[in-house]
Amino acid sequence: MNQLVPLPRVWVNATETNLVPAEDRGLAFGDGLFETMRLHGARVPLLERHLQRLQHGALRLRIALEIDELRAEISRFLSSSGTDEGILKLIVTRGDGGRGYRVDAGNEARRILMQRPLAQHPAQWWSEGVSIRHCDTRLGSNPALAGMKHLNRLEQVLARLEWDDAQIAEGLMCDQKGRIVEGVSTNLFLVSGGRLLTPVIDHCGVAGVMRGFILDVVAPELALNTEQVHCERALLGAAQEVFLCNAVIGVWPVRQLGTKRWPLGPVTRRVQAHVAQFLAS
Amino acid sequence: MNQLVPLPRVWVNATETNLVPAEDRGLAFGDGLFETMRLHGARVPLLERHLQRLQHGALRLRIALEIDELRAEISRFLSSSGTDEGILKLIVTRGDGGRGYRVDAGNEARRILMQRPLAQHPAQWWSEGVSIRHCDTRLGSNPALAGMKHLNRLEQVLARLEWDDAQIAEGLMCDQKGRIVEGVSTNLFLVSGGRLLTPVIDHCGVAGVMRGFILDVVAPELALNTEQVHCERALLGAAQEVFLCNAVIGVWPVRQLGTKRWPLGPVTRRVQAHVAQFLAS
Repeated sequence: MNQLVPLPRVWVNATETNLVPAEDRGLAFGDGLFETMRLHGARVPLLERHLQRLQHGALRLRIALEIDELRAEISRFLSSSGTDEGILKLIVTRGDGGRGYRVDAGNEARRILMQRPLAQHPAQWWSEGVSIRHCDTRLGSNPALAGMKHLNRLEQVLARLEWDDAQIAEGLMCDQKGRIVEGVSTNLFLVSGGRLLTPVIDHCGVAGVMRGFILDVVAPELALNTEQVHCERALLGAAQEVFLCNAVIGVWPVRQLGTKRWPLGPVTRRVQAHVAQFLAS
Repeated sequence: MNQLVPLPRVWVNATETNLVPAEDRGLAFGDGLFETMRLHGARVPLLERHLQRLQHGALRLRIALEIDELRAEISRFLSSSGTDEGILKLIVTRGDGGRGYRVDAGNEARRILMQRPLAQHPAQWWSEGVSIRHCDTRLGSNPALAGMKHLNRLEQVLARLEWDDAQIAEGLMCDQKGRIVEGVSTNLFLVSGGRLLTPVIDHCGVAGVMRGFILDVVAPELALNTEQVHCERALLGAAQEVFLCNAVIGVWPVRQLGTKRWPLGPVTRRVQAHVAQFLAS
Protein backbone atom coordinates (compact mmCIF):
# COMPACT_ATOMS: atom_id res chain seq x y z
CA MET A 1 0.00 0.00 0.00
CA ASN A 2 1.15 3.50 -0.81
CA GLN A 3 2.51 4.92 2.45
CA LEU A 4 1.96 8.49 1.25
CA VAL A 5 -1.82 8.17 1.31
CA PRO A 6 -3.00 9.51 4.68
CA LEU A 7 -5.28 7.23 6.65
CA PRO A 8 -8.85 8.48 6.65
CA ARG A 9 -10.73 9.62 9.71
CA VAL A 10 -13.43 7.01 10.33
CA TRP A 11 -16.57 6.66 12.42
CA VAL A 12 -18.40 3.35 12.62
CA ASN A 13 -21.90 3.75 14.07
CA ALA A 14 -20.97 7.20 15.41
CA THR A 15 -17.89 5.88 17.23
CA GLU A 16 -14.34 6.83 16.23
CA THR A 17 -12.80 3.56 15.04
CA ASN A 18 -11.58 2.21 11.74
CA LEU A 19 -12.58 -1.39 12.47
CA VAL A 20 -15.66 -3.32 11.38
CA PRO A 21 -16.80 -6.80 12.52
CA ALA A 22 -15.74 -9.56 10.13
CA GLU A 23 -19.39 -10.73 10.15
CA ASP A 24 -20.65 -7.53 8.53
CA ARG A 25 -22.96 -8.34 5.62
CA GLY A 26 -21.42 -5.56 3.56
CA LEU A 27 -18.19 -7.55 3.60
CA ALA A 28 -19.85 -10.96 3.27
CA PHE A 29 -22.20 -10.16 0.39
CA GLY A 30 -21.76 -6.52 -0.62
CA ASP A 31 -25.08 -6.13 1.20
CA GLY A 32 -25.23 -2.37 1.44
CA LEU A 33 -24.91 1.01 -0.25
CA PHE A 34 -22.45 3.87 -0.39
CA GLU A 35 -22.18 7.54 -1.22
CA THR A 36 -19.02 9.42 -2.17
CA MET A 37 -19.59 13.08 -1.41
CA ARG A 38 -17.72 16.30 -2.03
CA LEU A 39 -16.96 18.21 1.15
CA HIS A 40 -16.55 21.97 0.73
CA GLY A 41 -16.40 24.60 3.46
CA ALA A 42 -17.19 21.89 6.04
CA ARG A 43 -20.47 21.05 4.31
CA VAL A 44 -21.68 18.72 1.57
CA PRO A 45 -23.27 20.80 -1.22
CA LEU A 46 -25.29 17.88 -2.62
CA LEU A 47 -26.06 16.23 0.73
CA GLU A 48 -29.84 16.03 0.30
CA ARG A 49 -29.49 14.37 -3.10
CA HIS A 50 -27.03 11.84 -1.67
CA LEU A 51 -29.35 11.07 1.24
CA GLN A 52 -32.33 10.78 -1.09
CA ARG A 53 -30.55 8.26 -3.33
CA LEU A 54 -29.36 6.35 -0.26
CA GLN A 55 -32.85 6.24 1.19
CA HIS A 56 -34.29 5.06 -2.13
CA GLY A 57 -31.62 2.33 -2.35
CA ALA A 58 -32.24 1.25 1.24
CA LEU A 59 -35.95 0.92 0.47
CA ARG A 60 -35.21 -1.23 -2.58
CA LEU A 61 -32.82 -3.43 -0.58
CA ARG A 62 -35.12 -3.39 2.49
CA ILE A 63 -32.37 -2.05 4.74
CA ALA A 64 -33.91 -0.18 7.69
CA LEU A 65 -32.29 3.24 7.79
CA GLU A 66 -33.28 6.30 9.80
CA ILE A 67 -32.35 9.06 7.40
CA ASP A 68 -32.89 11.93 9.87
CA GLU A 69 -30.62 10.27 12.43
CA LEU A 70 -28.06 9.67 9.72
CA ARG A 71 -28.20 13.34 8.67
CA ALA A 72 -27.58 14.37 12.31
CA GLU A 73 -24.70 11.86 12.56
CA ILE A 74 -23.08 13.31 9.43
CA SER A 75 -23.49 16.79 10.85
CA ARG A 76 -21.75 15.79 14.11
CA PHE A 77 -18.99 14.04 12.15
CA LEU A 78 -18.35 17.14 10.05
CA SER A 79 -18.50 19.61 12.92
CA SER A 80 -15.94 17.59 14.89
CA SER A 81 -13.60 17.54 11.90
CA GLY A 82 -10.47 19.67 11.66
CA THR A 83 -10.62 20.11 7.89
CA ASP A 84 -13.33 21.50 5.68
CA GLU A 85 -12.28 20.28 2.22
CA GLY A 86 -12.13 16.74 0.93
CA ILE A 87 -14.22 13.67 0.29
CA LEU A 88 -16.81 12.23 2.63
CA LYS A 89 -17.54 8.58 1.99
CA LEU A 90 -20.51 6.92 3.64
CA ILE A 91 -21.07 3.16 3.62
CA VAL A 92 -24.34 1.74 4.94
CA THR A 93 -24.52 -2.02 5.37
CA ARG A 94 -27.32 -4.29 6.59
CA GLY A 95 -25.22 -4.92 9.72
CA ASP A 96 -24.03 -8.25 11.06
CA GLY A 97 -24.94 -11.74 9.95
CA GLY A 98 -22.73 -13.43 7.38
CA ARG A 99 -23.98 -16.93 8.24
CA GLY A 100 -26.20 -17.12 5.19
CA TYR A 101 -28.12 -14.94 2.79
CA ARG A 102 -31.15 -14.92 5.08
CA VAL A 103 -31.61 -11.63 6.92
CA ASP A 104 -32.09 -11.75 10.70
CA ALA A 105 -35.10 -9.83 11.96
CA GLY A 106 -34.19 -6.61 13.74
CA ASN A 107 -30.83 -6.22 12.06
CA GLU A 108 -29.42 -2.75 12.63
CA ALA A 109 -27.83 -1.01 9.66
CA ARG A 110 -24.16 -0.13 10.14
CA ARG A 111 -23.01 3.38 9.15
CA ILE A 112 -19.38 3.98 8.24
CA LEU A 113 -18.27 7.58 7.68
CA MET A 114 -14.81 8.26 6.26
CA GLN A 115 -13.21 11.59 5.51
CA ARG A 116 -10.35 11.77 3.03
CA PRO A 117 -8.45 14.49 1.18
CA LEU A 118 -9.40 15.13 -2.45
CA ALA A 119 -7.47 13.09 -5.02
CA GLN A 120 -4.87 15.18 -6.88
CA HIS A 121 -5.84 15.34 -10.55
CA PRO A 122 -4.15 17.71 -13.05
CA ALA A 123 -5.90 21.10 -13.27
CA GLN A 124 -5.97 20.74 -17.08
CA TRP A 125 -8.46 17.89 -16.72
CA TRP A 126 -11.01 20.57 -15.87
CA SER A 127 -9.66 23.41 -18.03
CA GLU A 128 -8.72 21.49 -21.21
CA GLY A 129 -10.50 18.16 -20.85
CA VAL A 130 -9.54 14.54 -20.37
CA SER A 131 -8.47 11.57 -22.46
CA ILE A 132 -10.58 8.50 -21.93
CA ARG A 133 -10.78 4.93 -23.23
CA HIS A 134 -13.26 2.13 -23.81
CA CYS A 135 -13.25 -0.74 -21.30
CA ASP A 136 -13.73 -4.35 -22.34
CA THR A 137 -15.38 -5.25 -19.05
CA ARG A 138 -19.11 -4.87 -19.49
CA LEU A 139 -21.86 -4.16 -17.01
CA GLY A 140 -24.20 -7.04 -16.20
CA SER A 141 -27.85 -6.46 -16.85
CA ASN A 142 -30.19 -6.53 -13.88
CA PRO A 143 -33.06 -4.05 -13.45
CA ALA A 144 -33.40 -5.15 -9.80
CA LEU A 145 -30.04 -3.51 -9.02
CA ALA A 146 -29.78 -0.80 -11.71
CA GLY A 147 -29.33 2.79 -10.59
CA MET A 148 -28.37 2.03 -6.98
CA LYS A 149 -24.93 2.83 -5.63
CA HIS A 150 -24.70 -0.57 -3.94
CA LEU A 151 -21.58 -2.34 -2.73
CA ASN A 152 -21.48 -4.92 -5.57
CA ARG A 153 -18.86 -3.19 -7.68
CA LEU A 154 -16.63 -5.94 -9.08
CA GLU A 155 -17.43 -4.85 -12.62
CA GLN A 156 -15.98 -1.40 -11.93
CA VAL A 157 -12.93 -2.93 -10.22
CA LEU A 158 -12.27 -5.18 -13.24
CA ALA A 159 -12.78 -2.30 -15.67
CA ARG A 160 -10.38 -0.05 -13.72
CA LEU A 161 -7.76 -2.85 -13.81
CA GLU A 162 -7.72 -2.57 -17.61
CA TRP A 163 -5.44 0.48 -17.73
CA ASP A 164 -2.51 1.87 -15.78
CA ASP A 165 -1.74 4.93 -17.94
CA ALA A 166 -2.01 8.00 -15.68
CA GLN A 167 -2.86 10.11 -18.76
CA ILE A 168 -6.16 8.27 -19.16
CA ALA A 169 -8.64 9.83 -16.77
CA GLU A 170 -11.55 7.45 -17.19
CA GLY A 171 -12.86 4.36 -18.99
CA LEU A 172 -16.29 3.96 -20.55
CA MET A 173 -18.32 0.86 -19.77
CA CYS A 174 -20.92 -0.79 -22.01
CA ASP A 175 -23.86 -3.00 -21.20
CA GLN A 176 -24.08 -6.60 -22.42
CA LYS A 177 -25.34 -5.35 -25.80
CA GLY A 178 -22.36 -3.04 -26.28
CA ARG A 179 -24.21 0.21 -25.60
CA ILE A 180 -22.29 2.81 -23.59
CA VAL A 181 -23.76 3.31 -20.11
CA GLU A 182 -21.29 5.28 -18.00
CA GLY A 183 -17.70 5.78 -16.93
CA VAL A 184 -16.14 3.55 -14.26
CA SER A 185 -16.78 6.22 -11.63
CA THR A 186 -18.55 8.96 -13.61
CA ASN A 187 -21.69 9.47 -15.67
CA LEU A 188 -21.52 10.48 -19.32
CA PHE A 189 -23.21 13.36 -21.16
CA LEU A 190 -23.21 14.13 -24.89
CA VAL A 191 -24.18 17.33 -26.63
CA SER A 192 -25.96 16.45 -29.86
CA GLY A 193 -28.10 18.76 -31.99
CA GLY A 194 -28.19 21.31 -29.17
CA ARG A 195 -29.61 18.77 -26.71
CA LEU A 196 -27.97 17.21 -23.67
CA LEU A 197 -28.06 13.40 -23.89
CA THR A 198 -27.11 10.87 -21.22
CA PRO A 199 -27.41 7.08 -21.25
CA VAL A 200 -30.55 5.65 -19.67
CA ILE A 201 -29.91 3.87 -16.35
CA ASP A 202 -32.64 1.22 -16.22
CA HIS A 203 -30.93 -2.15 -16.63
CA CYS A 204 -27.44 -1.37 -15.29
CA GLY A 205 -25.31 1.55 -14.16
CA VAL A 206 -25.41 4.06 -11.32
CA ALA A 207 -27.84 6.98 -11.32
CA GLY A 208 -25.21 9.48 -10.23
CA VAL A 209 -26.09 12.36 -7.94
CA MET A 210 -24.31 14.87 -10.19
CA ARG A 211 -26.04 13.39 -13.24
CA GLY A 212 -29.36 13.97 -11.46
CA PHE A 213 -28.40 17.52 -10.48
CA ILE A 214 -27.45 18.34 -14.08
CA LEU A 215 -30.67 16.82 -15.47
CA ASP A 216 -32.99 18.31 -12.83
CA VAL A 217 -31.40 21.68 -12.05
CA VAL A 218 -28.55 22.74 -14.32
CA ALA A 219 -30.09 21.92 -17.69
CA PRO A 220 -33.42 23.71 -16.97
CA GLU A 221 -31.57 26.77 -15.64
CA LEU A 222 -29.44 26.86 -18.80
CA ALA A 223 -32.52 26.21 -20.98
CA LEU A 224 -31.03 22.98 -22.32
CA ASN A 225 -33.29 20.17 -23.47
CA THR A 226 -32.26 16.76 -22.16
CA GLU A 227 -32.92 13.18 -23.17
CA GLN A 228 -31.99 9.83 -21.65
CA VAL A 229 -31.00 7.54 -24.49
CA HIS A 230 -29.70 4.10 -25.37
CA CYS A 231 -26.22 5.13 -26.36
CA GLU A 232 -24.70 3.25 -29.29
CA ARG A 233 -21.04 3.99 -30.00
CA ALA A 234 -22.01 5.80 -33.17
CA LEU A 235 -24.01 8.31 -31.14
CA LEU A 236 -20.92 9.10 -29.07
CA GLY A 237 -18.80 9.42 -32.20
CA ALA A 238 -21.23 11.89 -33.74
CA ALA A 239 -21.57 14.05 -30.60
CA GLN A 240 -20.50 17.70 -30.80
CA GLU A 241 -19.34 17.76 -27.19
CA VAL A 242 -18.79 15.12 -24.52
CA PHE A 243 -18.33 15.42 -20.77
CA LEU A 244 -18.14 13.30 -17.64
CA CYS A 245 -19.40 14.15 -14.17
CA ASN A 246 -19.68 13.00 -10.61
CA ALA A 247 -20.32 14.57 -7.22
CA VAL A 248 -16.61 14.85 -6.37
CA ILE A 249 -15.01 16.09 -9.59
CA GLY A 250 -17.91 18.11 -10.92
CA VAL A 251 -17.52 18.17 -14.72
CA TRP A 252 -14.60 17.01 -16.87
CA PRO A 253 -14.82 17.87 -20.58
CA VAL A 254 -13.76 14.92 -22.77
CA ARG A 255 -11.28 15.87 -25.46
CA GLN A 256 -10.01 12.51 -26.69
CA LEU A 257 -11.07 8.87 -27.01
CA GLY A 258 -8.63 6.87 -29.13
CA THR A 259 -8.29 8.76 -32.43
CA LYS A 260 -11.49 10.71 -31.87
CA ARG A 261 -11.21 14.29 -30.60
CA TRP A 262 -13.84 16.70 -29.38
CA PRO A 263 -13.57 20.45 -28.92
CA LEU A 264 -14.17 21.99 -25.54
CA GLY A 265 -17.53 23.36 -26.51
CA PRO A 266 -19.84 26.07 -25.19
CA VAL A 267 -22.49 23.80 -23.64
CA THR A 268 -19.91 21.86 -21.63
CA ARG A 269 -18.37 25.16 -20.47
CA ARG A 270 -21.71 26.48 -19.28
CA VAL A 271 -22.65 23.27 -17.45
CA GLN A 272 -19.19 23.02 -15.92
CA ALA A 273 -19.23 26.63 -14.71
CA HIS A 274 -22.71 26.22 -13.23
CA VAL A 275 -21.70 23.03 -11.39
CA ALA A 276 -18.41 24.53 -10.16
CA GLN A 277 -20.24 27.58 -8.85
CA PHE A 278 -22.73 25.40 -7.03
CA LEU A 279 -20.04 23.18 -5.47
CA ALA A 280 -18.11 26.25 -4.30
CA SER A 281 -21.14 28.16 -3.01
CA MET B 1 -29.45 -9.80 16.00
CA ASN B 2 -30.38 -13.20 17.34
CA GLN B 3 -28.56 -13.57 20.67
CA LEU B 4 -28.77 -17.37 20.54
CA VAL B 5 -26.43 -17.64 17.57
CA PRO B 6 -22.93 -18.28 18.92
CA LEU B 7 -20.25 -15.91 17.73
CA PRO B 8 -17.88 -17.57 15.30
CA ARG B 9 -14.21 -18.12 15.91
CA VAL B 10 -12.35 -15.81 13.51
CA TRP B 11 -8.85 -15.33 12.23
CA VAL B 12 -7.95 -12.33 10.08
CA ASN B 13 -4.60 -12.78 8.33
CA ALA B 14 -3.70 -15.62 10.72
CA THR B 15 -4.41 -13.50 13.81
CA GLU B 16 -7.27 -14.23 16.21
CA THR B 17 -9.55 -11.20 15.85
CA ASN B 18 -13.03 -10.61 14.52
CA LEU B 19 -12.29 -7.11 13.25
CA VAL B 20 -11.45 -5.92 9.75
CA PRO B 21 -10.31 -2.44 8.65
CA ALA B 22 -13.15 -0.27 7.35
CA GLU B 23 -11.01 0.41 4.26
CA ASP B 24 -11.07 -3.24 3.16
CA ARG B 25 -11.98 -3.51 -0.53
CA GLY B 26 -14.17 -6.51 0.18
CA LEU B 27 -16.41 -4.19 2.17
CA ALA B 28 -16.05 -1.20 -0.18
CA PHE B 29 -16.71 -3.01 -3.46
CA GLY B 30 -17.29 -6.71 -2.77
CA ASP B 31 -13.78 -7.02 -4.17
CA GLY B 32 -13.02 -10.59 -3.18
CA LEU B 33 -14.11 -14.21 -3.04
CA PHE B 34 -15.40 -16.68 -0.49
CA GLU B 35 -15.75 -20.37 0.18
CA THR B 36 -18.23 -22.02 2.56
CA MET B 37 -16.82 -25.41 3.51
CA ARG B 38 -18.07 -28.42 5.44
CA LEU B 39 -15.85 -29.34 8.35
CA HIS B 40 -15.97 -32.99 9.39
CA GLY B 41 -13.64 -34.81 11.76
CA ALA B 42 -11.50 -31.65 11.97
CA ARG B 43 -10.87 -31.69 8.23
CA VAL B 44 -12.53 -30.31 5.09
CA PRO B 45 -13.43 -33.21 2.77
CA LEU B 46 -13.60 -31.03 -0.36
CA LEU B 47 -10.75 -28.68 0.57
CA GLU B 48 -8.76 -29.08 -2.63
CA ARG B 49 -11.79 -28.32 -4.79
CA HIS B 50 -12.54 -25.23 -2.70
CA LEU B 51 -8.94 -24.04 -3.00
CA GLN B 52 -8.91 -24.74 -6.74
CA ARG B 53 -12.05 -22.66 -7.31
CA LEU B 54 -10.67 -19.91 -5.10
CA GLN B 55 -7.38 -19.87 -6.99
CA HIS B 56 -9.19 -19.76 -10.31
CA GLY B 57 -11.37 -16.88 -9.11
CA ALA B 58 -8.34 -15.00 -7.77
CA LEU B 59 -6.68 -15.33 -11.17
CA ARG B 60 -9.77 -13.98 -12.92
CA LEU B 61 -9.98 -11.05 -10.48
CA ARG B 62 -6.18 -10.59 -10.46
CA ILE B 63 -5.98 -10.95 -6.68
CA ALA B 64 -2.51 -12.16 -5.67
CA LEU B 65 -3.03 -15.21 -3.47
CA GLU B 66 -0.46 -17.76 -2.28
CA ILE B 67 -2.56 -20.90 -2.24
CA ASP B 68 0.04 -23.08 -0.47
CA GLU B 69 0.39 -20.54 2.33
CA LEU B 70 -3.38 -20.35 2.57
CA ARG B 71 -3.64 -24.16 2.81
CA ALA B 72 -1.11 -24.13 5.66
CA GLU B 73 -3.01 -21.30 7.39
CA ILE B 74 -6.26 -23.28 7.18
CA SER B 75 -4.48 -26.31 8.61
CA ARG B 76 -3.18 -24.30 11.58
CA PHE B 77 -6.63 -22.78 12.12
CA LEU B 78 -8.26 -26.21 12.18
CA SER B 79 -5.64 -27.86 14.38
CA SER B 80 -5.96 -25.10 16.97
CA SER B 81 -9.74 -25.51 17.03
CA GLY B 82 -11.61 -27.20 19.86
CA THR B 83 -14.38 -28.61 17.66
CA ASP B 84 -14.23 -30.86 14.63
CA GLU B 85 -17.70 -30.45 13.12
CA GLY B 86 -19.23 -27.37 11.56
CA ILE B 87 -18.79 -24.86 8.80
CA LEU B 88 -15.55 -23.21 7.79
CA LYS B 89 -16.04 -19.96 5.91
CA LEU B 90 -13.11 -18.32 4.15
CA ILE B 91 -13.25 -14.80 2.74
CA VAL B 92 -10.37 -13.53 0.60
CA THR B 93 -10.39 -9.82 -0.25
CA ARG B 94 -8.00 -7.68 -2.28
CA GLY B 95 -6.96 -6.01 1.01
CA ASP B 96 -7.09 -2.33 1.85
CA GLY B 97 -7.83 0.60 -0.40
CA GLY B 98 -11.39 1.86 -0.63
CA ARG B 99 -10.37 5.29 -2.00
CA GLY B 100 -11.39 4.40 -5.52
CA TYR B 101 -11.76 1.46 -7.87
CA ARG B 102 -8.10 1.65 -8.86
CA VAL B 103 -5.98 -1.10 -7.30
CA ASP B 104 -2.79 -0.07 -5.49
CA ALA B 105 0.31 -1.96 -6.60
CA GLY B 106 1.51 -4.48 -4.03
CA ASN B 107 -1.84 -4.86 -2.30
CA GLU B 108 -1.84 -7.86 0.02
CA ALA B 109 -4.90 -10.10 -0.04
CA ARG B 110 -6.72 -10.35 3.29
CA ARG B 111 -7.75 -13.82 4.51
CA ILE B 112 -10.64 -14.18 6.94
CA LEU B 113 -11.33 -17.63 8.40
CA MET B 114 -14.49 -18.22 10.43
CA GLN B 115 -15.66 -21.39 12.07
CA ARG B 116 -19.32 -21.84 12.89
CA PRO B 117 -21.62 -24.68 13.97
CA LEU B 118 -23.74 -26.32 11.31
CA ALA B 119 -27.17 -24.79 10.76
CA GLN B 120 -29.97 -26.94 12.22
CA HIS B 121 -32.17 -28.18 9.39
CA PRO B 122 -34.87 -30.87 9.85
CA ALA B 123 -33.53 -34.40 9.25
CA GLN B 124 -36.47 -35.02 6.87
CA TRP B 125 -34.99 -32.51 4.42
CA TRP B 126 -32.41 -35.19 3.65
CA SER B 127 -34.57 -38.28 4.17
CA GLU B 128 -37.85 -37.15 2.56
CA GLY B 129 -36.87 -34.11 0.54
CA VAL B 130 -37.55 -30.39 0.61
CA SER B 131 -40.20 -27.96 -0.55
CA ILE B 132 -38.83 -25.13 -2.67
CA ARG B 133 -40.17 -22.07 -4.50
CA HIS B 134 -39.42 -19.86 -7.47
CA CYS B 135 -37.83 -16.46 -6.74
CA ASP B 136 -38.81 -13.34 -8.66
CA THR B 137 -35.33 -11.84 -8.24
CA ARG B 138 -33.30 -12.78 -11.28
CA LEU B 139 -29.57 -13.18 -11.76
CA GLY B 140 -27.86 -10.53 -13.84
CA SER B 141 -26.01 -11.70 -16.91
CA ASN B 142 -22.25 -11.16 -17.00
CA PRO B 143 -19.84 -13.80 -18.32
CA ALA B 144 -16.94 -11.83 -16.73
CA LEU B 145 -18.24 -12.78 -13.28
CA ALA B 146 -20.13 -16.04 -13.94
CA GLY B 147 -19.08 -19.14 -12.01
CA MET B 148 -17.02 -17.35 -9.36
CA LYS B 149 -18.02 -17.34 -5.72
CA HIS B 150 -17.27 -13.64 -5.42
CA LEU B 151 -18.52 -11.23 -2.78
CA ASN B 152 -21.08 -9.47 -5.02
CA ARG B 153 -24.14 -11.34 -3.78
CA LEU B 154 -26.94 -8.79 -3.58
CA GLU B 155 -29.06 -10.83 -5.98
CA GLN B 156 -28.99 -13.78 -3.57
CA VAL B 157 -29.77 -11.50 -0.62
CA LEU B 158 -32.79 -10.03 -2.44
CA ALA B 159 -33.98 -13.48 -3.50
CA ARG B 160 -33.69 -14.82 0.06
CA LEU B 161 -35.74 -11.85 1.30
CA GLU B 162 -38.67 -13.08 -0.81
CA TRP B 163 -39.82 -15.71 1.68
CA ASP B 164 -39.96 -16.20 5.42
CA ASP B 165 -41.73 -19.58 5.56
CA ALA B 166 -39.43 -21.98 7.45
CA GLN B 167 -41.02 -24.90 5.55
CA ILE B 168 -39.48 -23.63 2.29
CA ALA B 169 -35.90 -24.85 2.17
CA GLU B 170 -34.70 -23.04 -0.93
CA GLY B 171 -35.67 -20.72 -3.78
CA LEU B 172 -34.78 -21.17 -7.44
CA MET B 173 -33.31 -18.24 -9.36
CA CYS B 174 -33.60 -17.57 -13.09
CA ASP B 175 -31.41 -15.63 -15.47
CA GLN B 176 -32.67 -12.53 -17.28
CA LYS B 177 -34.34 -14.75 -19.89
CA GLY B 178 -36.28 -16.70 -17.27
CA ARG B 179 -34.21 -19.88 -17.46
CA ILE B 180 -33.54 -21.60 -14.14
CA VAL B 181 -29.88 -21.36 -13.11
CA GLU B 182 -29.53 -22.41 -9.47
CA GLY B 183 -30.89 -22.16 -5.95
CA VAL B 184 -30.07 -19.14 -3.78
CA SER B 185 -27.31 -21.11 -2.04
CA THR B 186 -27.41 -24.45 -3.85
CA ASN B 187 -26.97 -25.87 -7.34
CA LEU B 188 -29.77 -27.75 -9.08
CA PHE B 189 -29.79 -31.19 -10.71
CA LEU B 190 -32.57 -32.89 -12.67
CA VAL B 191 -32.91 -36.53 -13.62
CA SER B 192 -34.40 -36.75 -17.09
CA GLY B 193 -34.43 -39.78 -19.38
CA GLY B 194 -31.88 -41.51 -17.16
CA ARG B 195 -29.41 -38.61 -17.45
CA LEU B 196 -28.27 -36.12 -14.84
CA LEU B 197 -28.86 -32.55 -16.02
CA THR B 198 -27.70 -29.33 -14.40
CA PRO B 199 -28.01 -25.73 -15.62
CA VAL B 200 -25.00 -24.37 -17.49
CA ILE B 201 -23.05 -21.71 -15.52
CA ASP B 202 -21.58 -19.51 -18.24
CA HIS B 203 -23.39 -16.17 -18.03
CA CYS B 204 -24.43 -16.13 -14.36
CA GLY B 205 -24.53 -18.36 -11.30
CA VAL B 206 -21.96 -20.06 -9.09
CA ALA B 207 -20.08 -23.16 -10.21
CA GLY B 208 -20.59 -24.95 -6.89
CA VAL B 209 -17.90 -27.22 -5.49
CA MET B 210 -20.43 -29.99 -4.77
CA ARG B 211 -21.89 -29.55 -8.27
CA GLY B 212 -18.38 -30.08 -9.65
CA PHE B 213 -17.79 -33.10 -7.42
CA ILE B 214 -21.05 -34.69 -8.57
CA LEU B 215 -20.30 -34.00 -12.25
CA ASP B 216 -16.63 -35.05 -12.11
CA VAL B 217 -16.61 -37.86 -9.57
CA VAL B 218 -20.01 -39.11 -8.41
CA ALA B 219 -21.74 -39.38 -11.79
CA PRO B 220 -18.90 -41.33 -13.45
CA GLU B 221 -18.64 -43.69 -10.49
CA LEU B 222 -22.40 -44.32 -10.65
CA ALA B 223 -22.24 -44.66 -14.46
CA LEU B 224 -24.60 -41.69 -14.94
CA ASN B 225 -24.43 -39.58 -18.07
CA THR B 226 -24.48 -35.86 -17.39
CA GLU B 227 -25.30 -32.78 -19.42
CA GLN B 228 -25.12 -29.06 -18.67
CA VAL B 229 -28.21 -27.47 -20.15
CA HIS B 230 -30.12 -24.23 -20.56
CA CYS B 231 -32.95 -25.03 -18.18
CA GLU B 232 -36.37 -23.79 -19.19
CA ARG B 233 -39.10 -24.20 -16.59
CA ALA B 234 -40.74 -26.89 -18.72
CA LEU B 235 -37.61 -29.03 -18.42
CA LEU B 236 -37.85 -28.87 -14.63
CA GLY B 237 -41.55 -29.68 -14.74
CA ALA B 238 -40.90 -32.76 -16.88
CA ALA B 239 -38.01 -34.07 -14.76
CA GLN B 240 -38.38 -37.48 -13.09
CA GLU B 241 -36.30 -36.46 -10.09
CA VAL B 242 -34.92 -33.17 -8.79
CA PHE B 243 -32.28 -32.46 -6.18
CA LEU B 244 -30.23 -29.60 -4.76
CA CYS B 245 -26.66 -29.69 -3.51
CA ASN B 246 -23.89 -27.70 -1.94
CA ALA B 247 -20.69 -28.42 -0.06
CA VAL B 248 -22.28 -28.00 3.38
CA ILE B 249 -25.63 -29.81 3.07
CA GLY B 250 -24.58 -32.46 0.56
CA VAL B 251 -27.78 -33.43 -1.32
CA TRP B 252 -31.38 -32.50 -0.61
CA PRO B 253 -34.00 -34.29 -2.73
CA VAL B 254 -36.71 -31.88 -3.94
CA ARG B 255 -40.22 -33.18 -3.36
CA GLN B 256 -42.39 -30.11 -3.95
CA LEU B 257 -42.43 -26.86 -5.89
CA GLY B 258 -45.83 -25.16 -5.76
CA THR B 259 -48.36 -27.76 -6.94
CA LYS B 260 -45.70 -29.91 -8.59
CA ARG B 261 -44.43 -32.96 -6.70
CA TRP B 262 -41.57 -35.32 -7.39
CA PRO B 263 -40.92 -38.75 -5.95
CA LEU B 264 -37.72 -39.41 -4.04
CA GLY B 265 -36.21 -41.44 -6.86
CA PRO B 266 -33.43 -43.98 -7.16
CA VAL B 267 -30.86 -41.75 -8.90
CA THR B 268 -31.15 -39.04 -6.24
CA ARG B 269 -30.81 -41.70 -3.54
CA ARG B 270 -27.64 -43.11 -5.07
CA VAL B 271 -26.04 -39.66 -5.56
CA GLN B 272 -27.06 -38.60 -2.05
CA ALA B 273 -25.64 -41.76 -0.45
CA HIS B 274 -22.38 -41.42 -2.38
CA VAL B 275 -21.99 -37.78 -1.35
CA ALA B 276 -22.91 -38.47 2.29
CA GLN B 277 -20.39 -41.30 2.43
CA PHE B 278 -17.69 -39.06 1.00
CA LEU B 279 -18.45 -36.18 3.41
CA ALA B 280 -18.36 -38.61 6.36
CA SER B 281 -15.25 -40.50 5.25
